[in-house]
Amino acid sequence: MMLYSKHKKYLVAVDCIIFGYDILEKEVKLLLIKRSFESAKGKWSLAGGFVKAEESLDVAASRILHDLTGLIRVFLKQSYCYGNPDRDPGARVISAAYWALIKIKDIDKKLSERNGAHWHSLNQLPELIFDHNDMVVRALKELQMQVKIKPIGFELLPQKFTLVQLFDLYEAICQRTIDKRNFRKKLLAMNILEKLDEKEKETSRRGAFYYRFIKERYLKLKENGFDFDMDVN
Amino acid sequence: MMLYSKHKKYLVAVDCIIFGYDILEKEVKLLLIKRSFESAKGKWSLAGGFVKAEESLDVAASRILHDLTGLIRVFLKQSYCYGNPDRDPGARVISAAYWALIKIKDIDKKLSERNGAHWHSLNQLPELIFDHNDMVVRALKELQMQVKIKPIGFELLPQKFTLVQLFDLYEAICQRTIDKRNFRKKLLAMNILEKLDEKEKETSRRGAFYYRFIKERYLKLKENGFDFDMDVN
Repeated sequence: MMLYSKHKKYLVAVDCIIFGYDILEKEVKLLLIKRSFESAKGKWSLAGGFVKAEESLDVAASRILHDLTGLIRVFLKQSYCYGNPDRDPGARVISAAYWALIKIKDIDKKLSERNGAHWHSLNQLPELIFDHNDMVVRALKELQMQVKIKPIGFELLPQKFTLVQLFDLYEAICQRTIDKRNFRKKLLAMNILEKLDEKEKETSRRGAFYYRFIKERYLKLKENGFDFDMDVN
Repeated sequence: MMLYSKHKKYLVAVDCIIFGYDILEKEVKLLLIKRSFESAKGKWSLAGGFVKAEESLDVAASRILHDLTGLIRVFLKQSYCYGNPDRDPGARVISAAYWALIKIKDIDKKLSERNGAHWHSLNQLPELIFDHNDMVVRALKELQMQVKIKPIGFELLPQKFTLVQLFDLYEAICQRTIDKRNFRKKLLAMNILEKLDEKEKETSRRGAFYYRFIKERYLKLKENGFDFDMDVN
């Protein structure tokens, strides 16, 4: 114990990069917070908080997300641990960054607004405090990598969606144009979507069929060695 | 500042998963340490230490690696941050795990032995303290992923190596058999190796030509959008 006690202790925080998708504006958005305390009061920040004695890092991230949005059981993934000595001028704080994927319409809007939270388009982010912009850049890279190999894009869409909506989501996440035919071919070949009897008719007169992601089928395929693959040009 | 001061502080550590490759035994090895203090004295452990006030996490990892092996400028990558409240019975410690790739023969053997360090085959790892086995499992998965898309395998080999030696390394890292023809084809197609005039003659009578990795050429290709790809069956 002696060897433990002679070492310095630091505050440990969790910061959450909360991704949402605006299906009408076809934009990936981030839920940011106007910081209400020093240091950097009044500046935009990721949602964050300090880790409590009884909490793991994962639990702290879930708690922070729940306090802000009212959501539970959200897709949440640790990104990277940031620990430069001077990253926060208020104190030495080591921060584990997590990224979350949520459906914008699912959040408790009143709760999040009361906490000073607002959605910002990824393409027009304000300057964030400390190293939070770096956190966003890294998390976005990880998201771009992960949507190629895991069916996590569906976390950002409603239960039912058209193929065009899914395609638009992928273009928005990857921040580039994607070959539409190749995308559709790869997607349907995986056989993890169910075509519904219902059409989305607001965007075009003919309408487009809704689909849903069949998670059970995906999990079964995966058990048998199947790899999700949407690595498209 | 008030909001900072009311929160709990914790010890923050860095633990290093140090990978080496034994070219003769064709085995990936880990440099482990017999722990010389409580808690868990006498058990095997990853190389680790507490983060100092003036250190970033990266710097702490480099320092720990240097103190143990005498090496500087080693390939080092953050893996994951471990923070379960009860992971270390001695105290609450948040640990950022890093993995390192080193050439076994480059380390200062006397120094590492004085520190109680020994190489263990990945296939016969002892039980490690705390969550260190989990750290190894995750780091190995990351290494397996990364050798497919980055030319980091060379960090584990001598400057000059035969194609068979490189192939054996990939099989040892991926822990499975790999199609030799496909491997060779993909590798040579990338045009990032230089064939030397010299042969390795200890393994076979005819001998096999040595190659070296041309880092400058790889970096130039990468600048022009080239992707390293050794995703082989």
